[in-house]
Amino acid sequence: KSWVNISDDCDFSIDNIPFGVGSFPKLSESNGFSLPTLQPDAPRCCTAIGEYAVDLHLLAEAGLLDDLSRDEGNIENFHPRIVFSQPTLNSFMSTNKNTWVAVRNRLISLFLEDDNSKQDHGLVADSRLRDNLPLRNLAMHPLQSVTCHLPATIGDYTDFYSSREHATNVGIMFRGKDNALQPNWLHMPIGYHGRSSSIFPSGSGGKMASIRRPCGQLQLDANDPLKGSTYGPCKLMDFELEVAFFVGGSPNNDSVAKQIGRPITLDEAKERIFGYVLMNDWSARDIQKWEYVPLGPFTSKNFATTISPWIVTPMALEPFRCETSAGKQGGGGFDTFSGPREDPTPLEYLQDPNYGSYDSNLSVSINPSSTPGTETEICKSNLKHMYWSSIQQLVHHSVTGCLMNPGDLLASGTISGKEEHNFGSMLELSWNGSRDIKLSCGDTRKFLKDGDAVIMKGWCDKNGIGRVGFGECSARVLPADPFP
Amino acid sequence: KSWVNISDDCDFSIDNIPFGVGSFPKLSESNGFSLPTLQPDAPRCCTAIGEYAVDLHLLAEAGLLDDLSRDEGNIENFHPRIVFSQPTLNSFMSTNKNTWVAVRNRLISLFLEDDNSKQDHGLVADSRLRDNLPLRNLAMHPLQSVTCHLPATIGDYTDFYSSREHATNVGIMFRGKDNALQPNWLHMPIGYHGRSSSIFPSGSGGKMASIRRPCGQLQLDANDPLKGSTYGPCKLMDFELEVAFFVGGSPNNDSVAKQIGRPITLDEAKERIFGYVLMNDWSARDIQKWEYVPLGPFTSKNFATTISPWIVTPMALEPFRCETSAGKQGGGGFDTFSGPREDPTPLEYLQDPNYGSYDSNLSVSINPSSTPGTETEICKSNLKHMYWSSIQQLVHHSVTGCLMNPGDLLASGTISGKEEHNFGSMLELSWNGSRDIKLSCGDTRKFLKDGDAVIMKGWCDKNGIGRVGFGECSARVLPADPFP
Ligand SMILES: [Ca+2]
Ligand SMILES: [Ca+2]
Ligand SMILES: [Mg+2]
Ligand SMILES: [Mg+2]
Ligand code: NI
Repeated sequence: KSWVNISDDCDFSIDNIPFGVGSFPKLSESNGFSLPTLQPDAPRCCTAIGEYAVDLHLLAEAGLLDDLSRDEGNIENFHPRIVFSQPTLNSFMSTNKNTWVAVRNRLISLFLEDDNSKQDHGLVADSRLRDNLPLRNLAMHPLQSVTCHLPATIGDYTDFYSSREHATNVGIMFRGKDNALQPNWLHMPIGYHGRSSSIFPSGSGGKMASIRRPCGQLQLDANDPLKGSTYGPCKLMDFELEVAFFVGGSPNNDSVAKQIGRPITLDEAKERIFGYVLMNDWSARDIQKWEYVPLGPFTSKNFATTISPWIVTPMALEPFRCETSAGKQGGGGFDTFSGPREDPTPLEYLQDPNYGSYDSNLSVSINPSSTPGTETEICKSNLKHMYWSSIQQLVHHSVTGCLMNPGDLLASGTISGKEEHNFGSMLELSWNGSRDIKLSCGDTRKFLKDGDAVIMKGWCDKNGIGRVGFGECSARVLPADPFP
Repeated sequence: KSWVNISDDCDFSIDNIPFGVGSFPKLSESNGFSLPTLQPDAPRCCTAIGEYAVDLHLLAEAGLLDDLSRDEGNIENFHPRIVFSQPTLNSFMSTNKNTWVAVRNRLISLFLEDDNSKQDHGLVADSRLRDNLPLRNLAMHPLQSVTCHLPATIGDYTDFYSSREHATNVGIMFRGKDNALQPNWLHMPIGYHGRSSSIFPSGSGGKMASIRRPCGQLQLDANDPLKGSTYGPCKLMDFELEVAFFVGGSPNNDSVAKQIGRPITLDEAKERIFGYVLMNDWSARDIQKWEYVPLGPFTSKNFATTISPWIVTPMALEPFRCETSAGKQGGGGFDTFSGPREDPTPLEYLQDPNYGSYDSNLSVSINPSSTPGTETEICKSNLKHMYWSSIQQLVHHSVTGCLMNPGDLLASGTISGKEEHNFGSMLELSWNGSRDIKLSCGDTRKFLKDGDAVIMKGWCDKNGIGRVGFGECSARVLPADPFP
């Protein structure tokens, strides 16, 4: 249905249209097309379709993003030439959902085949890009050649803890089966503030990103905390499979005392989710265990967090809405729910009549540097395993008035399913180091070794709709580099 | 010793020279002085002396900050006209300590009286500002007329928990006397990531800032967590008296994998503290109690944090260095230490041969709106009560490689001393609500009431040196505004 050649297993179908920030190799020669453009190696806003990154800055300069449809309501004050020439998506995120929808619809129109346009997405094909070969050559770059950057300046980053299975697993390991879930867990999305300075994009353009195994404080004797700690490389290096979303829209300022925040209602929250990425919340379990009481994880988490570079919109995910597998919250959700239990009704501010999730497959593979060709999938999970939705997370985050800005990143927490192979961390997969995780090369793991690459993937698939995928979130673990 | 008239009890003596960001009232008429300047109401970098804010942008444009002394080493690539016309201090913070020292010395020279210049600060008076009345009129504004802004864009904010007395007090209330301090506490500065979006400047220009009493989840029955929670206004509204510092200098990038971070050594950390402010970490105790296990405080803290707008430099505080009152860490500190105990030697990366603090008085007063004139001092504390120093906090923060950027803010944690009237929060002053705090108007408090203004002050005083103070950190509590 698109004039762009897109294979069936490609994450970036015409039904996806994710947003990201990319830069391109320097041109060896001028191609005769002249627009007042950025240098190719300057980061700018892009979308991805098929095997291409598409330069939105250039499409805007060529006038293809002007006169957007106002079907969806207010899109005043949107200046695509300015917004898409920025080195981050923050300006675009700062507009509103109507604008995101209108831009996405225009892009779909520009990529649609002419002949079957009427029945596709209710949109009419716009041939201005297809028929402009010089513009196509300048604006569309093979993904293999594109360097992806962090898609936004992340003002603040928060990590939730909203998978019931993960919270239960960790609870069993640390506190025993009877006290696995804390009493507050079913009443609010538990979360903590994280470190935005250490969020890095996944590798791109065929290059693997890297993170460094951290050194830090390790408890000397697990049975005698009074013996204190020692300094050294983390021995229990782990990943956490997560999906995170970027906040968009106008900050929630208090109308009376403008500078301070006011709570975001559930209805407002729906308009303030710009889109989703995969996230690896790298975790140093031994450091975490010693430091985390009573104020939560700190140096065990703040050294690195990796995200996939392409932001998948709620519009693209909407066809994959489903009930969660984690339980039915009182006060909302799919009528057809057939799950095993009825959980407490959340307080009114958290009740969502449309409570649900997205049916999005998630996987984690390990690729050891010792056997570069082999990749073993060690976890299959699904976004629908989340008990608290991203909308509920955003509402709760702001309930006391926390100011939520465009570009803020809120992560799901480790996404674990019910079965062993659905667990989203090695802590759970190896059950606290008590069982081996087998790799196809014959090696085994309990936690990560130096040189291991962790590769996360996520995608939605459904008959009649193009695949909506997240691309990859991957990085390799470099050896530790301790103080001399 | 300055030609500026400075009273003895003024926080901003010539020995202080703090940095901040201010804007000024629009001029009613041109004053005949012409420089390519910002509009008066545009925020720009300033210092404060006596009762004046001084526009550093204008001093730079007039050439007074050119050709700085390089006594202190490298100050290459410093462009004062650009740096000081910014609406935040981030650019200035991004230079290095040599530059901060050179700028401060130049400013002292410009404010020095001519006749006794030789013996003052080892600096020679520079009469170019004193003798330029039109420039003085344009660049020096009565503090009462200045609007102070957040001095930096704060990328990330962290709150530590480094007062032994505070940690012990809270531990006794929550876990009993025998388990008051957690076993990790004496081995590392415990801290957690906070919310930078909700940090606001104290009132300025004679205006009181305000924050709003938050609504959130409150536990229904303290004795039965299974009863869950209710939504409503915080009933146990509190302040926390803290001192926070801004990080400066170049980010600690890993030289191999440039994008990721490497640990900051203790020697490096000394060069990366730009300066200090007072901080009120507003805390909703009832919300905190229900939410904080196991990942730490979240909505109970992230709604508002107030800081004083003038950043006091380590150079200004240096004459007030002293031993801490909290104990002597093995491996470092003043030889003269005469404290009651010898505590565990910290791990090597945290050992500071110059371990110590600053002798800086701190106070908290309450001014109820019902009796606007009256202000009751309810707490006297001192920065020297901190067990972990800001240098140790910065080193530990980055031990696993966390990237520390100019403009990041790191807070001390509540600063409590040994005596009851030294406690830095109402939780401690009222001993968890079990005793009354008396106000001079006849009222009593256990926690804050609507309309109460909390006023924090901090200052260093010593014979032969001008007073080095922080100014005020204050804001008033507005009534809650719950969901309908
Ligand atoms: Ca996590
Ligand atoms: Ca605090
Ligand atoms: Mg992380
Ligand atoms: Mg706070
Ligand atoms: Ni200028």
